Amino acid sequence: MASEEQQPGRPPRSGDPVFDLHAGGKMETRPTVSLTGPDDLSLAYTPGVARVCEAIAADPSLSQHYTWVPNTVAIVTDGTAVLGLGDIGPAAAMPVMEGKAVLFKQFGGVDAVPLCLDTTDTEEIIETVVRLAPSFGGINLEDISAPRCFEIEQRLKERLDIPVFHDDQHGTAVVALAALQNALRLTGRDPGTTRVVISGAGAAGVAVARILLEAGIKDLAVTDRKGVLSSARPDLTPVKRALAVDTADHYGRSGSLADVLVGADVYIGVSGGTVPEEHVAAMAPDAIIFGLANPIPEVHPDVARRHARVVATGRSDFPNQINNVLAFPGIFRGAFDVHATAITEGMKLAAADALARLVGDDLTEDYVIPSPFDPRVGPAVATAVADAARRGGVARR
Amino acid sequence: MASEEQQPGRPPRSGDPVFDLHAGGKMETRPTVSLTGPDDLSLAYTPGVARVCEAIAADPSLSQHYTWVPNTVAIVTDGTAVLGLGDIGPAAAMPVMEGKAVLFKQFGGVDAVPLCLDTTDTEEIIETVVRLAPSFGGINLEDISAPRCFEIEQRLKERLDIPVFHDDQHGTAVVALAALQNALRLTGRDPGTTRVVISGAGAAGVAVARILLEAGIKDLAVTDRKGVLSSARPDLTPVKRALAVDTADHYGRSGSLADVLVGADVYIGVSGGTVPEEHVAAMAPDAIIFGLANPIPEVHPDVARRHARVVATGRSDFPNQINNVLAFPGIFRGAFDVHATAITEGMKLAAADALARLVGDDLTEDYVIPSPFDPRVGPAVATAVADAARRGGVARR
Repeated sequence: MASEEQQPGRPPRSGDPVFDLHAGGKMETRPTVSLTGPDDLSLAYTPGVARVCEAIAADPSLSQHYTWVPNTVAIVTDGTAVLGLGDIGPAAAMPVMEGKAVLFKQFGGVDAVPLCLDTTDTEEIIETVVRLAPSFGGINLEDISAPRCFEIEQRLKERLDIPVFHDDQHGTAVVALAALQNALRLTGRDPGTTRVVISGAGAAGVAVARILLEAGIKDLAVTDRKGVLSSARPDLTPVKRALAVDTADHYGRSGSLADVLVGADVYIGVSGGTVPEEHVAAMAPDAIIFGLANPIPEVHPDVARRHARVVATGRSDFPNQINNVLAFPGIFRGAFDVHATAITEGMKLAAADALARLVGDDLTEDYVIPSPFDPRVGPAVATAVADAARRGGVARR
Repeated sequence: MASEEQQPGRPPRSGDPVFDLHAGGKMETRPTVSLTGPDDLSLAYTPGVARVCEAIAADPSLSQHYTWVPNTVAIVTDGTAVLGLGDIGPAAAMPVMEGKAVLFKQFGGVDAVPLCLDTTDTEEIIETVVRLAPSFGGINLEDISAPRCFEIEQRLKERLDIPVFHDDQHGTAVVALAALQNALRLTGRDPGTTRVVISGAGAAGVAVARILLEAGIKDLAVTDRKGVLSSARPDLTPVKRALAVDTADHYGRSGSLADVLVGADVYIGVSGGTVPEEHVAAMAPDAIIFGLANPIPEVHPDVARRHARVVATGRSDFPNQINNVLAFPGIFRGAFDVHATAITEGMKLAAADALARLVGDDLTEDYVIPSPFDPRVGPAVATAVADAARRGGVARR
């Protein structure tokens, strides 16, 4: 198109590399068929398309073959918990969701549509996603604040027969577990006797705790701003109370983060807070410290290094980056490849195992998790997830 | 990605050209930025993207520059009035919506996302679209049955400050008006004294009638299955009653379609019915017949030819194809180019004028409307629509 209106001049922050890269957005839709004349039009659109519609109306499973639906994920947010920025609303959340869509395609071959909703009401979000579901092969929930995110995900999983995945929970959990598995191997620890402390009981903290329990970690304490989650506390939400029962209660752990860090083998920070050096100094020898807050880790890697053998962060400028992009593209690729009806615990554990195994014999203190740009990552995760879906009985092909 | 699961074998209807073209769907999402290493990732995603989010949170107008939103339209349907197939549901409607998305991009450079909703409730459709609105620069309603489509469009226009356009109404109306303007010019008629009959009072019929009134047609009768819409009839919906007052009532026209066709200058069929030859034979000399039902026109062109000087259909295999694709890509292109808050009557009339003017001095009985593949169409419509938006005060840049 050549109309002059398409060049609305330089955008306001021109010259800033971040803003220049974002000018015009970061994604587009494109035809995968070419229409060069009336004959093409009559196949791809009327009258030909009517036969495809009629066939799907008669046999809905044909939409898996003749639409883009089975390869397309909706990235759904309400903009309430965007990065570390918090509740910035749907419009301001869009650049993150577009970025996610770019990563879905580049690392998983998954088509992705960012949908930023103008509501923060749990019921409205659920109803909206249910109504949109016929258009998508899966739902990736993103940057929805806790505790609403737990209920939204759970109820959507119950109502829909396509994968529903809250990446802030499970993407982080899968990659953290993969890195932890390798860190335990490197330091010769057994999951069943390893003492783990997680600070942060939001979306990521709860999900990391849950997947560690699934993976065999037993001695686990999760803290929020008021200290260790234990049943003795009267102030817990239902989600936190259930987690307390399954974690610190077993070993009678309580008190502050500083209290439980004494002698702990592993610290995983998903809180956004800061942990003083003297507290991590009290951890066990050969400690493992993952400070995943972004951009400022709970413990700076240079500090953590003085007291730990393995250090990981969410940042690309230090070794061992715990980055969700290692997980979500391959997980949806694998789920879509077998037309899975859900993403199960088994599929998440399989994704973590696949990630951990890619490190293999190259395992060192500075290499417990592959790089996001390692080309083996997406296919390895996808294959493992697809296999786990078949074993788990949620594969439709 | 190389996992074997991506090749699920030949789709069920392989070998049929229509189905082969639809295998895997007709569209995709793609990044417009390239991520080749950690530095790119830190600009397009965390941590860089956070600065763009913060800037938009502080100044929402920046989303016009730094997201894909201002160039992206949602194609929203509930699957209740798909082509001539009727209420086939959201899943079966998807091939048509994907086709529309392909046409939006190819002919207008507009990114488009097909959204097939799992609800037919007017209130639920409205609420769903309102919640989705922050993610889109415009809303194209599609294949929603009458009379719900009128209320849904009207109320969304009131609630949203982005273009809302029901293509089945206004796309058809714009192209029909363009063709009619040229047909009147060819036959030396004045709109103010031309007698027009429209059969069909659904989405397209109502919109065609309304735009003809806007364009200066005065003697107009609209029929449904029970005959001419006139206030004397007790069975009319509010939409039909209002139309009766503005059309047939003025000239006291009533009776059957056959009755009002006697001596009429123009017949426009958007009903899907069939008109017997003896009825069109009773029209005025140099009659104009547009039989727009697809794939079977109300009057077969070979029959219409015997009684009319200008004949148009919705089909590509006869001259003078009235095809919405001549309108909607350019209309949204023009609206988006000036960041319009709405698509006004003036913008629709400007689109029709631009289409009609492209025919220019080449006007003949078999060429009253350009081809969809005429490369001038999209830019001409876009420029006219953008200019009209500025004149109408709905342009934001």
